[in-house]
Amino acid sequence: MNGAILAVGDELVQGRVINTTSFLAARRLFLLGYEIKEIVNVPDDLSLIKAYLSRFLEKYRFVLVSGGLGPTTDDLTNEAVAQTLGVPLETNQEMLARIRQREKELGLKPNPLRQRMALLPQGAVLLTKSKAMAGYYLKKGDQLLFCLPGVPEEFAYLLQDKVIPLLREHLPSDQAVEALVLKLFGLREADINLALQELEQGERLKIGYYPVLPEIHLALASSGSTPEEAQTLLKKALQKVQKAFGEYIFGQDEDTLEAVVGRLLQERGETVAVAESCTGGLIASRITRVPGSSAYFDRGVVSYSNQAKIDLLGVPKSCLETHGAVSRETALAMAQGIRKQAGTTYGLSVTGIAGPTGGTPQKPVGTVWIGFSCPDKTVAQCFLFPGDRHLVQDFAASTALDWLRRYLTYGTLLPRYKFLRAC
Amino acid sequence: MNGAILAVGDELVQGRVINTTSFLAARRLFLLGYEIKEIVNVPDDLSLIKAYLSRFLEKYRFVLVSGGLGPTTDDLTNEAVAQTLGVPLETNQEMLARIRQREKELGLKPNPLRQRMALLPQGAVLLTKSKAMAGYYLKKGDQLLFCLPGVPEEFAYLLQDKVIPLLREHLPSDQAVEALVLKLFGLREADINLALQELEQGERLKIGYYPVLPEIHLALASSGSTPEEAQTLLKKALQKVQKAFGEYIFGQDEDTLEAVVGRLLQERGETVAVAESCTGGLIASRITRVPGSSAYFDRGVVSYSNQAKIDLLGVPKSCLETHGAVSRETALAMAQGIRKQAGTTYGLSVTGIAGPTGGTPQKPVGTVWIGFSCPDKTVAQCFLFPGDRHLVQDFAASTALDWLRRYLTYGTLLPRYKFLRAC
Repeated sequence: MNGAILAVGDELVQGRVINTTSFLAARRLFLLGYEIKEIVNVPDDLSLIKAYLSRFLEKYRFVLVSGGLGPTTDDLTNEAVAQTLGVPLETNQEMLARIRQREKELGLKPNPLRQRMALLPQGAVLLTKSKAMAGYYLKKGDQLLFCLPGVPEEFAYLLQDKVIPLLREHLPSDQAVEALVLKLFGLREADINLALQELEQGERLKIGYYPVLPEIHLALASSGSTPEEAQTLLKKALQKVQKAFGEYIFGQDEDTLEAVVGRLLQERGETVAVAESCTGGLIASRITRVPGSSAYFDRGVVSYSNQAKIDLLGVPKSCLETHGAVSRETALAMAQGIRKQAGTTYGLSVTGIAGPTGGTPQKPVGTVWIGFSCPDKTVAQCFLFPGDRHLVQDFAASTALDWLRRYLTYGTLLPRYKFLRAC
Repeated sequence: MNGAILAVGDELVQGRVINTTSFLAARRLFLLGYEIKEIVNVPDDLSLIKAYLSRFLEKYRFVLVSGGLGPTTDDLTNEAVAQTLGVPLETNQEMLARIRQREKELGLKPNPLRQRMALLPQGAVLLTKSKAMAGYYLKKGDQLLFCLPGVPEEFAYLLQDKVIPLLREHLPSDQAVEALVLKLFGLREADINLALQELEQGERLKIGYYPVLPEIHLALASSGSTPEEAQTLLKKALQKVQKAFGEYIFGQDEDTLEAVVGRLLQERGETVAVAESCTGGLIASRITRVPGSSAYFDRGVVSYSNQAKIDLLGVPKSCLETHGAVSRETALAMAQGIRKQAGTTYGLSVTGIAGPTGGTPQKPVGTVWIGFSCPDKTVAQCFLFPGDRHLVQDFAASTALDWLRRYLTYGTLLPRYKFLRAC
């Protein structure tokens, strides 16, 4: 059951806006067994829009158009659809009433230009009554043509609540697809590549990986003539992948490292506090992005200056003078300092050189010490992370969070990562 | 001077990866006077790739292909290009040598499959010698065809350093385009919409706005037959826009709020420290994303629990008990506390209810007190920010940073924002 997406708007082909909506639609539909064969972005150009519409209607069972439904003369989707289908444009009274109401709400004078938005191709059925938004669909024989607004929130709402139910009703998918994404941290692409070569794939089972640095995501998708068939295939593959990558897998689908760590802490009724230097508050920020994090997160200290390390974490001045701010000793003192001060179960610390300046031959940019303090013990490891300042910060924050995850899941006190540096 | 982009890969049309590279290319090229007329995503499907290649080569002066250059049998770009142009595939010895070297580096056995990557269409000229990456171009009469890897970092590098110089050399643009993006904070879309209606636009001057919440960005683009003509037009428009939006404009193009604030602090030799509750380290993290921030950022405290506010910021227990953690008094105590403790010129504080839980009728989700402390005075204002947890956090962090920017730029002690709440 194949379809195509046409996204309309000068802003897309001029690169002012990234088209996220088409990819959202493609992903949702793929997981329901529909295949999108082409995603095309064109400017507000009547002949191009028409050319794609007729080409797509020749080849596919359904077509999704986004954008070009607004009130200005640049908005050409309605006209293009009408001309392609050979039907006239007619004023949709329901749509017109909505436009008038919206003008009232915004305190605008009735505008003949805005009235254009109600001029729809004959046969257009509005997708929603409840919201002040454009969007309609048309049937042409056994084909479906959807026209949606380009605004991401409106597109996403209409896709989920209107387009997908209509598709499933009129064009039920003939094959079942199961898919999931596994999220890994701590390996490099080359490691994944090697391991994946050992795993069998085929027409009905695909495994792909893509870096979402500092993480790497593995996408597994299986298909079958029944959901059970697809599920069985996926389950088998999942077991093999889990065996291959083990502790490096931290979650799946919508999981984030910080949410996984949060769940583990909450299950055990334990708490954490963080002391950050080169990550500058990134770990605390990621932890507190998660709703309900106040249950397990007590505090964070961003001890950017040496004085802050002394004042807020009790790092001895002599330690900083003897070993330097980026050292095992300082990382240990920071992790222990924050844990004791906050009275939490765990303390995490990060001190390193994120760059672009500040590196030395002994401690190049990317050198980061991470400290981990639990009730029994405080330990630290040195890492050499790749990339620019932001990537080094992201790697360091993820390593600290993942370290806690591995301890909470496997009891691993000193987990092994591919970025470890002999210090 | 028109062109088109073809992005190849199952992951794109299955929605596993958002195609960011095509939009990057479109933006860069638009600003140089090249117009991209179509951005198309197709799966690893030989006939589709070929169909688009020939259609594009019929219509456009240049074509950019991304993806499908890898070693697996799914990678079909080379084959499609060869068939479309009617030339044979030949082993490129330079490319082969690189592949062998890379295999060595990664400790892999020579693999005949990987050798496919060196099998390029006759006439292909490699885009780079220095890096272990794919990518080449072909001339066909006065047309240019570029084939780039889909990996965003490699694509971006080759685009900037290789594709653009080649385009400018072989296909100089015939019209001058000037464009810039102004970044605004503190207004709502409706405010911008109204103000923009007053500004004249035309074929040679376009002004558009798009929300990049919590910011709103204004895109101005002008064109002319000479660079001077385009520049004059843009300059005039810029003056009008600056008059219309004044203090709400915080920067342009690649500026970030935190980088602008950093520059202002550094110019004055002043420093800042932050005390965060509901933003959870986000402000500190944004400040320290900027290279060189250690020159003006001393420390941050994420006082998530009440005890942390007492321990780390000296907020009186009685203040928390009498007024609550989300109050003017607590915001003032936090801002003053962090400034005094750190010995910085300024102190910023944030305490509020980011949600989804914790709201009350008196203090609904989105209620945030922000405190600002400078040598003369400590003040606080209450805001009601829209959106979910993340958006409330983003709005709060941006408001605190923007407040400091407005003080540093205009001396405004209590800037006005559209999100202000009477408390």
